Amino acid sequence: MNEHVESALPPLPLTGVGVDVHAFGPEGTPLWVAGLHWPGERGLTGHSDGDVVAHAAADALFSAAGIGDLGLHFGTDRPDMADASGERILSEAAAIVREAGYDVGNVSVQLIGNRPKFSPRREEAAGVLSKAAGARVHLSATTTDALGLTGRGEGLAAIATALVVPRR
Amino acid sequence: MNEHVESALPPLPLTGVGVDVHAFGPEGTPLWVAGLHWPGERGLTGHSDGDVVAHAAADALFSAAGIGDLGLHFGTDRPDMADASGERILSEAAAIVREAGYDVGNVSVQLIGNRPKFSPRREEAAGVLSKAAGARVHLSATTTDALGLTGRGEGLAAIATALVVPRR
Amino acid sequence: MNEHVESALPPLPLTGVGVDVHAFGPEGTPLWVAGLHWPGERGLTGHSDGDVVAHAAADALFSAAGIGDLGLHFGTDRPDMADASGERILSEAAAIVREAGYDVGNVSVQLIGNRPKFSPRREEAAGVLSKAAGARVHLSATTTDALGLTGRGEGLAAIATALVVPRR
Repeated sequence: MNEHVESALPPLPLTGVGVDVHAFGPEGTPLWVAGLHWPGERGLTGHSDGDVVAHAAADALFSAAGIGDLGLHFGTDRPDMADASGERILSEAAAIVREAGYDVGNVSVQLIGNRPKFSPRREEAAGVLSKAAGARVHLSATTTDALGLTGRGEGLAAIATALVVPRR
Repeated sequence: MNEHVESALPPLPLTGVGVDVHAFGPEGTPLWVAGLHWPGERGLTGHSDGDVVAHAAADALFSAAGIGDLGLHFGTDRPDMADASGERILSEAAAIVREAGYDVGNVSVQLIGNRPKFSPRREEAAGVLSKAAGARVHLSATTTDALGLTGRGEGLAAIATALVVPRR
Repeated sequence: MNEHVESALPPLPLTGVGVDVHAFGPEGTPLWVAGLHWPGERGLTGHSDGDVVAHAAADALFSAAGIGDLGLHFGTDRPDMADASGERILSEAAAIVREAGYDVGNVSVQLIGNRPKFSPRREEAAGVLSKAAGARVHLSATTTDALGLTGRGEGLAAIATALVVPRR
């Protein structure tokens, strides 16, 4: 009886965290953030499309599983990922985490910056990223009262937490 | 039997994250932070009283439940909240999260800034915010070694994580 | 039957968060970060050795248990800790959290900064800090695209989340 009950108990989840920051690129750079294209908005520089929301989410998943980070998994060893979309990066990260023996609980990501106006497309973005991750991805946004790198409009930041559960 | 045991299993909690930043206002602005008034300290600008600790906590709760953020819930649609205290914002946020079908596990918030000296009133503040949230709110504080927006004394920041559990 | 099953249920974990920032010191300062010495790298100023990764991890543990922060536990009341290594600070923090009645689930920490090149020693560092904490410590690293205090090379930051479980 005890064995039966104990074997049915869920293992303790593991927490992970991920921050990502990218600078705005030159006028005319397309903006991709949270898995969506934002027409008319200046885009971000950096590895792949600079999608800070997707990258922070992927890093939080790797962090929760304790298997490294974006640089390890999609760095110079994976030239095929150099231009990968945020959606694909999150999808691949979730697959790697599951392959390593973990179920994904959820990921929550907050976009930090002055623009784009995120709220009208929040649910659309959450749908795209949740499908990519195969798990609930919760999205939100805030500004920093004109202070700091995002307040000065130098770039966008995102912060994510994730829970994963060791699979039996 | 299996159904009985399985139905007794707790659902996996969901994690959320929230960051908030506000600039210091003009000399004479009263400071409200972590649900408390800090006499003699310069206050913060921004939506309502600028209580970064309460706002980060509320955003972490919304984030964990996946139901948006402060801007969505207390933006221009809720003029009654424009001047709301941090305590009231957290209380309303927790009520909205429960109404959406989630129990609140806990919220932890770290205040980041040079002042006020937080430690002597940490437990008092935790008591006020825990009562507001109807759940454990853990508080802590740190500084950034004179670097960044908080280190230069331009404003205060807070970062929060929260756990909620889907109610059956 | 119900009592039996319920008594076997694990308590809900508690989440905590911790951020730490330290400035680089003068040329010749040894760098200690994530419990390791990094030969040839400029070190950090601040309390003890300025190990932002270990300090953020310790603060996340205190935060999850709701028992204050580094300043409270290792401040002026503990002169013996003034020069303590990051490894020792994390070890003592985990002991204090357990003494307060909590089991440590895991801690995840992301180092934010331009250098040192973290990836080659990530597993070594995770081993040292996991042993110190008596629990899984997951490590990762990122940069901020030349923006903000870490992007300008003024210092290093770290952000941590932790889960603890109330002991029965």
